[in-house]
Amino acid sequence: MTLSQLTQQIHDKKSFLCVGLDVDLEKIPAHLLQEEDPIFAFAKAIIDATHDLCVAYKPNTAFFEAYGVKGWQALEKTINYLNENYPDHFTIADAKRGDIGNTSTRYAKAFYEDLSFDSVTIAPYMGKDSVEPFLDFEDKFAILLALTSNGGSTDFQTKSVDGKPLYQEVLKTASQYKNSDRLMYVVGATKAEYLSDIRAIVPDAFLLVPGVGAQGGSLSEVVKYGKNDQVGLLVNSSRGIIYASQGKDFAQAARAKALELQQQMAGLL
Amino acid sequence: MTLSQLTQQIHDKKSFLCVGLDVDLEKIPAHLLQEEDPIFAFAKAIIDATHDLCVAYKPNTAFFEAYGVKGWQALEKTINYLNENYPDHFTIADAKRGDIGNTSTRYAKAFYEDLSFDSVTIAPYMGKDSVEPFLDFEDKFAILLALTSNGGSTDFQTKSVDGKPLYQEVLKTASQYKNSDRLMYVVGATKAEYLSDIRAIVPDAFLLVPGVGAQGGSLSEVVKYGKNDQVGLLVNSSRGIIYASQGKDFAQAARAKALELQQQMAGLL
Repeated sequence: MTLSQLTQQIHDKKSFLCVGLDVDLEKIPAHLLQEEDPIFAFAKAIIDATHDLCVAYKPNTAFFEAYGVKGWQALEKTINYLNENYPDHFTIADAKRGDIGNTSTRYAKAFYEDLSFDSVTIAPYMGKDSVEPFLDFEDKFAILLALTSNGGSTDFQTKSVDGKPLYQEVLKTASQYKNSDRLMYVVGATKAEYLSDIRAIVPDAFLLVPGVGAQGGSLSEVVKYGKNDQVGLLVNSSRGIIYASQGKDFAQAARAKALELQQQMAGLL
Repeated sequence: MTLSQLTQQIHDKKSFLCVGLDVDLEKIPAHLLQEEDPIFAFAKAIIDATHDLCVAYKPNTAFFEAYGVKGWQALEKTINYLNENYPDHFTIADAKRGDIGNTSTRYAKAFYEDLSFDSVTIAPYMGKDSVEPFLDFEDKFAILLALTSNGGSTDFQTKSVDGKPLYQEVLKTASQYKNSDRLMYVVGATKAEYLSDIRAIVPDAFLLVPGVGAQGGSLSEVVKYGKNDQVGLLVNSSRGIIYASQGKDFAQAARAKALELQQQMAGLL
C-alpha cells in the first residue's frame, strides 16, 4: 500500500482509527471457545463488524505466538482474511522486532512477504543496521518505537542525551536512515504536547498513536498537536474496542465503540 | 536451571561456549534439504556433534519464524530435543522481545513455559514494565540487550546520558528491577575493555558475549576483563561453528571448530 492510498482512505472514511487485535483466549466470549479456531473466529468477527469505521488493523503478534503453532496459524488466517476481504486496510504486525542486519532481513521477509503485512513495528535500540533492512521493501513500512505510552518509557526514552530526550534522538537519527520515507513512528498519547516537538523533527511521517482512552490520552489533543497536512496519524485502540462486551453481542459492542471513536475523528478532521 | 548448575557445568566441561543455532536453509548442506524437516535435521546434527563441548544453545527465533508455521514447528522440535536429550544445557531463545506488561507476560510464558526455554533475550527500550514480567519465573532468566556487537550499536547505546553511555544507564537501571538476580546481559566483545566498566556495574551477573571471532573480539580479552568469581560468561559462536563446512562432513567440521574454542576456554579458565 502507498501512503497516498492510506491518506485517501482516511479522508473517505473520515477516520484514522486502527483497531488492535490483541486476542486473548481468557477475554473473548466463552461461546467462541467451542469454535475450531477461536482466535481466528474472534478476530474475523471483530474485523467484519468494524471494517468500514477504521483504516488499519494491528494484530499484536505476542498474543498469537503465545499459543505456539496454533497461534501462528491463526495469525496467518487473520492476515489472509484481511488481505482477501479488505485489501484497502493498512495492516500492522505489532511485533516490535529488531536484530542485526541479516536477521532483521529475515524478520522483514517473514512479515512483509510471507505474511503480506503492510508494516511491522520495530525497536530502535540496536540502531541503523537493525532498522534499515526493514526499509528495503517498496510500499512496505517499518513503524519504529519512539515514545511509548507505558510507565517504563521514562526509564530510558525520556532520559537526556546531549540535552534532548532519547526518543527525540531516535527520531532525529532514524529520519536520516536510508529509505526513511518508509518509516513511521510509535508515539504514545499520554503526553500529547510532546507531539509538537515530535512534529518538528518528523513533519511528514505517519505517527501510530496508542494510549488514547484507556491509557489516558485525549483524541482532540493528539489531533491538535500531531496532525499534519496529510493527517499523518493512526490512532490505535485495542481493548477498548475488542473487549467492549464479553457476551454474544461482542461484535456489535465493538462496532459501537469503534463508531464512537470514528465520529469523534470525523469531527476533528 | 539454577545459576549454580550452570556454573558447575562450566567447570565440569571447562567451557563457557554457547552455540548459536541460526539455521538458514540457504546455508545448510544441500543433502539435508531432502529431509522432511531440514531445519530440525540440521539443528539436531549440530547439537549431537557439539553437546559435550558447550554449555548452552541459542536458537535465533528469527531464522525459525522466517519459515512460518513450519519454522515454528522446527523450533518446538529443537527445544524439545534439547530438553529430552541434553537437559543440563542452558537454553536461550534469542528472540529480542519486549512489549508492555501483559504482552511481555505472554512472551515470557510462550518461551519459558510452552517451549521450556531456560532464558530469552529481551530489548530494554520500553523500560521496567516491559522487562520485569520476564523476571517473574523461578529458575528462568531474561538476557537484556546492553551493548551489542553490530555497527548500529553506536547510534544510541554509546550515546551519552548524564555523562555515561546509554548501555551503562541500561545496566544500572535494570539491575534495580525486581528479581534482577534473574537478569543476564548481552555485551558484545568488539571492545573488550568496555567489560571492566560493565563488571563494575553488574559484578555478579552472567554476560552473554557475541562477536568473538568473526566479528573481531578476542577470547582472552573477554576473559581478562569480563570473568568474575563464578566465571559469569557465556561466549556465543554461531556461523563460525555451524557453517564450518557445507559438505556432508558439516557436523564433524562444526565439532572441530567448537573443540578449538573449548580448548582455548579451558586454557583461560
